[in-house]
Amino acid sequence: MRIGVLGTGVVGQTIGARLVGLEHDVMMGARAADNEKVLGFASRTGGQAGTFREAARHGDIVFNCLRGDAALDVLTAASGELVGKILVDVSNPLDFSRGVPPSLTVSNTDSLAEMIQRGLPETSVVKTLNTMNAAIMVDPARIPGPHSVFVSGNDRRAKGKVMDLLRSFGWRDNQILDLGDIASARGPEQFLPLWLRLWGALGTGEFNIAVMRRP
Amino acid sequence: MRIGVLGTGVVGQTIGARLVGLEHDVMMGARAADNEKVLGFASRTGGQAGTFREAARHGDIVFNCLRGDAALDVLTAASGELVGKILVDVSNPLDFSRGVPPSLTVSNTDSLAEMIQRGLPETSVVKTLNTMNAAIMVDPARIPGPHSVFVSGNDRRAKGKVMDLLRSFGWRDNQILDLGDIASARGPEQFLPLWLRLWGALGTGEFNIAVMRRP
Repeated sequence: MRIGVLGTGVVGQTIGARLVGLEHDVMMGARAADNEKVLGFASRTGGQAGTFREAARHGDIVFNCLRGDAALDVLTAASGELVGKILVDVSNPLDFSRGVPPSLTVSNTDSLAEMIQRGLPETSVVKTLNTMNAAIMVDPARIPGPHSVFVSGNDRRAKGKVMDLLRSFGWRDNQILDLGDIASARGPEQFLPLWLRLWGALGTGEFNIAVMRRP
Repeated sequence: MRIGVLGTGVVGQTIGARLVGLEHDVMMGARAADNEKVLGFASRTGGQAGTFREAARHGDIVFNCLRGDAALDVLTAASGELVGKILVDVSNPLDFSRGVPPSLTVSNTDSLAEMIQRGLPETSVVKTLNTMNAAIMVDPARIPGPHSVFVSGNDRRAKGKVMDLLRSFGWRDNQILDLGDIASARGPEQFLPLWLRLWGALGTGEFNIAVMRRP
């Protein structure tokens, strides 16, 4: 599949490399096509390097791995390239302006995923994977047991395609939880404050939550 | 131990009955001492019935099981009875004024637990148990596996006493996670939007999350 990855940080690099490993045709996009990190990605993985707009054009599915505070501007500028496509939103609206741990730039009665969906009405936005570190996103077997990944979006067909990608990463059906429409992304985004405190308490990001039910 | 339980809803009734079963000397407090629900509690369990103020006076440890939107007023009015005591805050700042699922009355850069701690500076506020339904709070064996309960508070000794109570409910040490100071309660409180969506997706409140680590 042709896949675009927007963002050159740890999340973009990890997802991009995993997708190349799964033999997808991947282009990572950066602000400038000669950005060191995007060139590094291309030389390490055999994927392609491009601008945000080029990577958005390249993908039938596009991953938003941008920083939360940059995502909306970049995506809006590339919105013409994303019409009719699936945008997998992995970003978190973290606000470091008040110090650490960060607060959120949007929360409670709105979410970054909803803002993106409103800004790109002809794109199917699917929120997922934002509730764990990058290594676990693409290799859930790092953590034992039926830990969980959440999926939110308005377009059922798009969620189905994203779930297929999750399965290809190693997620099993009993680990994938469809929370509902894109407004349900408020849940996973507002989980971040708890994730950050758990990270502090455990001294590692190598954890995830499992939703465990009464038998 | 002498324990006060403020609030007569499902959470207060469930915690109060469990504490009586553990042979504590429990008084449930309501707005009026002849409130039907508090009299029902007393006749069913053998615990005592009182006003909010009387229950606060009664307890060496006091549970806040009030509705989030009522908690601060009730606690502030009874603050004189809570000096030097431990207040276990189980409440959630749910805001139903915009419909269902509810949003939060406070979030992101503050929390209900912090507001209560600021309002009661001579009381040790410990946030816990607010991330699951009442039946699981007092009987964690309802859910298999090492699912988690979180503890936040500024006073280490108070957290230790609350953890002892949690152990008496059936929580094992590997299930109890100390998140840090009272500001860390922002995490568990902001988990509620995810909890509510999971409740909708699963069709039951009989679940909890487990924090699972890489071995």
